[in-house]
This record gives sequence, structure tokens and C-alpha cells, in this order.
Amino acid sequence: MSTSVPNPPAEGAAEDGETLGREVASGDRPRGVSRRGLLGAAGAGVVGIGLGAAGMAVRNRQPAGSAEPSPIDRAYPFYGDHQGGIITPAQDRLHFAAFDVTTSSREELIGLLRDWTAAAARLTAGQDAGEIGATSGAYDAPPDDTGEAIGLPPSGLTITFGFGPSLFRARGKDRFGIADRQPAALRRLPHFPADNLDPTRSDGDLCIQACADDPQVAVHAVRNLARIAFGRAAVRWSQLGFGRTSSTSVSQTTPRNLFGFKDGTANLKAEESALLDQHVWVPAGADPAAGWLAGGSYLVARRINMTIETWDRQSLREQEAVIGRTKAEGAPLSGGEEFTEPDFAMLGRGELPLIPEDSHVAMVHPDNNDGAQMLRRGYNFVDGSNGLGRLDAGLFFIAYVVDPRTHFIPIQTKIGIGDAMSEYLQHTGSALFAVPPGVKQGEYVGQALFT
Amino acid sequence: MSTSVPNPPAEGAAEDGETLGREVASGDRPRGVSRRGLLGAAGAGVVGIGLGAAGMAVRNRQPAGSAEPSPIDRAYPFYGDHQGGIITPAQDRLHFAAFDVTTSSREELIGLLRDWTAAAARLTAGQDAGEIGATSGAYDAPPDDTGEAIGLPPSGLTITFGFGPSLFRARGKDRFGIADRQPAALRRLPHFPADNLDPTRSDGDLCIQACADDPQVAVHAVRNLARIAFGRAAVRWSQLGFGRTSSTSVSQTTPRNLFGFKDGTANLKAEESALLDQHVWVPAGADPAAGWLAGGSYLVARRINMTIETWDRQSLREQEAVIGRTKAEGAPLSGGEEFTEPDFAMLGRGELPLIPEDSHVAMVHPDNNDGAQMLRRGYNFVDGSNGLGRLDAGLFFIAYVVDPRTHFIPIQTKIGIGDAMSEYLQHTGSALFAVPPGVKQGEYVGQALFT
Repeated sequence: MSTSVPNPPAEGAAEDGETLGREVASGDRPRGVSRRGLLGAAGAGVVGIGLGAAGMAVRNRQPAGSAEPSPIDRAYPFYGDHQGGIITPAQDRLHFAAFDVTTSSREELIGLLRDWTAAAARLTAGQDAGEIGATSGAYDAPPDDTGEAIGLPPSGLTITFGFGPSLFRARGKDRFGIADRQPAALRRLPHFPADNLDPTRSDGDLCIQACADDPQVAVHAVRNLARIAFGRAAVRWSQLGFGRTSSTSVSQTTPRNLFGFKDGTANLKAEESALLDQHVWVPAGADPAAGWLAGGSYLVARRINMTIETWDRQSLREQEAVIGRTKAEGAPLSGGEEFTEPDFAMLGRGELPLIPEDSHVAMVHPDNNDGAQMLRRGYNFVDGSNGLGRLDAGLFFIAYVVDPRTHFIPIQTKIGIGDAMSEYLQHTGSALFAVPPGVKQGEYVGQALFT
Repeated sequence: MSTSVPNPPAEGAAEDGETLGREVASGDRPRGVSRRGLLGAAGAGVVGIGLGAAGMAVRNRQPAGSAEPSPIDRAYPFYGDHQGGIITPAQDRLHFAAFDVTTSSREELIGLLRDWTAAAARLTAGQDAGEIGATSGAYDAPPDDTGEAIGLPPSGLTITFGFGPSLFRARGKDRFGIADRQPAALRRLPHFPADNLDPTRSDGDLCIQACADDPQVAVHAVRNLARIAFGRAAVRWSQLGFGRTSSTSVSQTTPRNLFGFKDGTANLKAEESALLDQHVWVPAGADPAAGWLAGGSYLVARRINMTIETWDRQSLREQEAVIGRTKAEGAPLSGGEEFTEPDFAMLGRGELPLIPEDSHVAMVHPDNNDGAQMLRRGYNFVDGSNGLGRLDAGLFFIAYVVDPRTHFIPIQTKIGIGDAMSEYLQHTGSALFAVPPGVKQGEYVGQALFT
């Protein structure tokens, strides 16, 4: 190792756990490991979130009367009862990656989860991925951060880890001594009617969902975590999303998907803690084999291509009939405004329901699905174009549910057949992951699965 | 056509030309065609740019003493001496698309350029793509805007059109009666040493560069322009860029590419009008056959994959030697700060130049390239992953030059062989377009080519 060290090594560097329970301000970061340090850490807006079952409290240090802090300056603590990135107000940009574990060693897998945990705690605080950092290490060693986020604020980054069914058992084999702890609900999703799945965009042993308000920060996180995984896990597939299609907090406006309609009006929100307990968080005792998952959730990922060229040739009337809402306001066709409850019984011309029975809103409404609700967290994507001169575009659907057997599979089965919207959709990727509960200081993500 | 019109038709709708020479404020937009109208147009920050040869004047209506307006509220006028999106301060996000013309009719091609011009003038002002709009048309006709940008501000959108060599002549055929006006410099780029080109990511008859500070606005623009082209041109390839890698104004900080280094420190800037005249804008009389291109430029597009996994394993010393600058500050290895001129003659240990001769900064510096400079406008991209567990990531290089024969081909030939950085690069896409000058009110883009 060289002795040529251009910057002093980090002194008094905080341990990963030190951000627990307190706000992460740039001023708290040790010099030499803060990305902001290089450009001068000037008054970042800061948000702390209590992630307990009682819901979410948002505080910020902005002066009274000013607008809310720029999303780009927000830092969410990594540690808590639940993982971040689920009920965190949906950030604007996504980088999602699924991994194949390439080691057969249980210890190496645990080591990876330890390393990922430490790095995720740093990255979400706006720090470099490792203690040496992007630029302040020994010159003759590779930096332990890749550097493209130098100078960028935390940008509301959250990192959420999940475990796929194949982590527990593959080709009948108990890979890491955890097969007997595989949740009964964690099985490869079945084939659905609208599926045209690409295996290279489906499944995976592990997943990382990185959400941020700056895409470079989300990409930086996945890239550095992939780098840390070298020799133990490799990227199986990855997906960027450029625009959120869901709100997960009542403080957020409803965004639009590439059909041009508001999406997620009726989504579960962070503030609805009783509903989250019912529909999102896995309760203790839900599955005797999988007590380690209590306080966690299931993440359903679906890459849904939209045939937007066909959609764009439909009349406004047809588009609204397919969705069941107006395009301008997102109001149900039974009347009112965006957040008016749809009235599926209200009849119009010809004694037909004003909201067609095969419309998307009718098909997915909890009233028509045994009360099941999801917390959706999807993103619009465009991945170039296909060979037919059409954009490869659509919705990367992400939903968090308490149990995919009750909260996703029946609904997807139904809408794959009966939803008028299915005519304009093709599902090209699919994956299911169990998302462990939040991480406690000094522990690693999913630790209860291995102890 | 139905008589069911939910919103009144646009009254007093501005003609496309009306935005010429004045600031575009949301309050100026006719109700019913403004995207903002739906959510209430509240005080958008506004920027007007004089695009004359004398350079760029930036005005805004923010109160004195306040920070600059949020980029998201900026609107740049579409009409001017030069097309927008060249010296416009580089926006954060990109959607670039190349098209194959599918009609053989000269009149239909001209019609397409007319329609694109009208739509681009509207879109850059934050309006719907057509006069009917996304939601206020006849219910039984398709809307003439796809709607996903409803409620989004102009977001600094610029739309830049270009003409590829194959528009003029393909397989020896004069397709549209313009073959004799093909610029001598507009030829398919030659094969370069680091090329591993994918034909489905290369070339094209036409191109659209849409840059904006909200990716949804850039995607919306390309999608609607592609829709307008239906039956006349189809998307050949398209590329999203999530983060700019160049500054084109002295008011901008230097961003970082996926090598983690600052990129574009020495880039040409909008404020350097004499240098722009020398290196970017095609002068009148440059090419007797191509007088129509005077005031335009050439756009070089290169999709450059980075082998980031290999790069990330190099020492900081090696990385800095490859680039020729420090990673932290971007200062040349000969000393100083980011904007200090590199001193290629300064020697260090072993009487070797402090800036290695094969470093990227040495290879591309104008002093070592007959004074040639480019205006770069590149973007970072990640397009999922490849089959080897690696991110499909890199730099979508865009440069505007006065003549690719003097300002790009010799430099790329040289660095493809000699640049130490080439070891970490693979060029997977390539295209060259002639970019017509700016559009005058009442005309269409490239009109001088057809008259």
C-alpha cells in the first residue's frame, strides 16, 4: 500500500449505528467520509421519520412559513422497525436490482448481508459506501466508493432488501440451511393470463430497491452494493424507473402513468397505520416457520409493458371507460372528484353502470376483492425501443402486501382475464421477495433468519 | 364525432409562433390547452434566452435576492437563431430518439417536419402536444396529447431535431429530392478502434434530442412526437439518460460521469460566443451544397459502455492517471484547481509528465488536437444489466461540432488507439446528424433544405 494519502484519514468516523434514532444532518457527518464535505456542507434540509406502528411523524428544520425542504436534501435513517422505502413517501426515481447468489457458503451470504447493511446505512445518510471513501483512501488501493455521487446530497435515498424463494431452496436443495424457514407464501408467482415473461427480467435470490429523488444517487447505491457483492452475488437483472406512479403519503400529489392517467389515487398511505397493519406488515405468528419475517412484508415486482401506440389511438371515451376514471381529474366515472369513492352501483344510459364492470378501478377495488388492499410503489420506465419501432415502455409495478396469496395472486388472476386494461398490457417480468423487518443497530438485515 | 365535449374548446389559443421573442409564462397560456391549467398555474419561474450570435442573456422574474428559479419551472422559447438544446444550460435528463422515415413521399416528410415544429413549440412552452389537448377534446376522438405530463411545468424542455445521412441518400437513391444538398461532412461515421456497434442502436434518418429537468417531460415529448410521426416515421432506437455529464454554461457546476470523475470541465460554454462560432455553428458558405445548414451544427451521438466493474477495481492512482485529473476536485495532475489549465510539460518523478501522455485529458485537449473543441452534452445511462451480471451502463455521448471531419473523427480515431481510458470503454452505438439552424416563426425546422 502506498503512503501517499492526499487527504487525512477519516477521524472520529461514526459507526454505522450512530444514525439510529436521530436526524442525519450533514454537519453530523465526519469530515472525509461525507460526500457533501467536498463541496461544503451547507444547511441540508433534514427529515427524521419515526417508523413505529403508530405511523409516521415528519419533522423538518426549515424555518416556519417556508416551503417544505427540497426532497434532494432529505435523509431518512436506515435503522428502524420497518425497512425504509416501503411507507417512505415515494421518491421520484428508482433503481431496482435482483441478484443471484454466487457463493454456496452460508457464512459468505451472511457476510454479504452484513456488508450490505453497513453500506446501506452509510449511503442513505449521504455518505460514501465505505469508510475509506471515493477519494480519501490510499492511492494504491481501489477506493471503496465509486465516486459518482460526490457532492450530491442524500436525496431521500432509501434501500430496501428482499429475499426471493430461490434463496431458500433451488432445484430441491437447501442452499444455506434456511429451507425450513421459507415462508409458505414465498413461492414463485404462478403464470398469469397476460404473462409473456422474460426469464432474464424475472425472479432472483435477493433484491435491492433503491429509491431517491436524484437518479444518480439511486444508481450509485445499487452500483456500490453490487460491487460489494463481488464474488458472492451478481446482478441478475436491473430496472430503472424515471417517474413514480404512486403516492404513499397523503402529503403527495397523485402522479400519472404512461397511459396519461393518475395512478394510485386509492393507494394505501403511510398515515393509515391500522390499514398497514392489516394489509402490508406481516404479523407475528402469521407463519410458524417464518417468525423472522414479522414486521416485514412481501414485495411483488412486475415489469408491465404498455402498448402505448395502441392506447394512444383510442378515444378519450374508451380510455376513460377502461380506467373507470376521468383522465383530467382522476374522478370516478360515477362522479365527484379524485378522492370521491367510486359508486359501482350507479347506473347511466341503458341501465349500465357508469363505471364499467370491466374497468380497472372496478376490477381492483377492495370492495370487489374481499377487502384486499396493496401498498403500491411503481415507476414509469422507458427502456429504449423494440424492433417494431415502438418504445419499450410501461410500468414497473411494485407492491408491498401482507400475503401475496390473498393480496396479489387472486387479484392478478382476475384482472389478467377480465380487466379491460389487460388488452393494452403485457407482463414481461415478475418476481416475489420476502422483505425482512427493519434493522436494529448492530444487526444486519434479515439477521433473524440466520439465528 | 361525438358532440360530448366536456371542457370548452380552447379560445384565443395562441398560434405556435406567438411565443417568439417573448417570455413564456403560464399566465400567457390559453386555458384549456395549458398542462398547468388543470392544476392552477401559480407563478412559474420563467426564463427567456436570446439565442443570437452575441451569446445568451438569461432573465428571470424571480424577486431580487431569491435563489434562481427552480429548473422545473423554466420555459425556453422554441424559436430563435439556433435550435434550443445546444447551448441551453444542460438540463438534467435526456430522452433521445432516432427515427427511420417510413414514407417515400417528399410532401409527407415536409408535413411531418411541419407537424413536429408546431408540436415542439407547444411542448417546450409546457402545453399539450396538440390544440385539442389531453383531456378537453371530443370524447369520441383520440386525444392529441397522451396526458402523462398533465400538471407538470415546462421543466426546461428543449427539443432539437437533426437529419441523418440516410435521409438524403440510401442505397444510392435520392429519397426525397435532397441528395444534391447533402453536406459533404454528413457521412456515416467511420469504424473506430473501440467500436463494437449495435446496428439497432446506431444511425437513423432523423433524430430528436429532448432534454428537460423532469424525465417525464422529456419522455412525454418524444412519445408525442413519435405518435405524430405515425405512418411517416418510426422510432429506430431511443436512449434515456438520467444524469447530465456536461455543463454548457458557466453558471453550472460540473457533474460526474460513472467513472466517478467530473466530466466536461473544459467543455465549451454558452457564454463563449466567439468559440461557439469557431467550433460549433456552421458558418454561411461552409459548404456550397448545404447553405441550408448555416447557423446549424453537427450532432455526434455515441453510446459508450463503461466496464465499470473493471474500473472499480483499479487503484485511485491508476484511475487518476487514466483521466489526468484528481478524482476529488477534478484538478489537472499538474496542479491547481478544477479550472486550472493543465500543464502537459510539467515533469514529476522519473522525469515523466505529471499528466501522463496517454491520459484522457492529454489526449483530448485542444492543444493536442489542432485546437479543435467540442460542445459536449452527454448523459449517464443504465439500461438494466447484461447476461454477465454486469450493469449495462455508461455515457451517452453527445457533442455539437462545426464539422465532424475536423472536430470529431480525428480525435476519436486517436483516442480509440492511444487513450488509456479506452481500455474501459466499448462503443455500442453511433450516429451523426446535421442539425438545422433555429426555426423562424411561421416556418418549420429544416425548411431551407426543401425550398
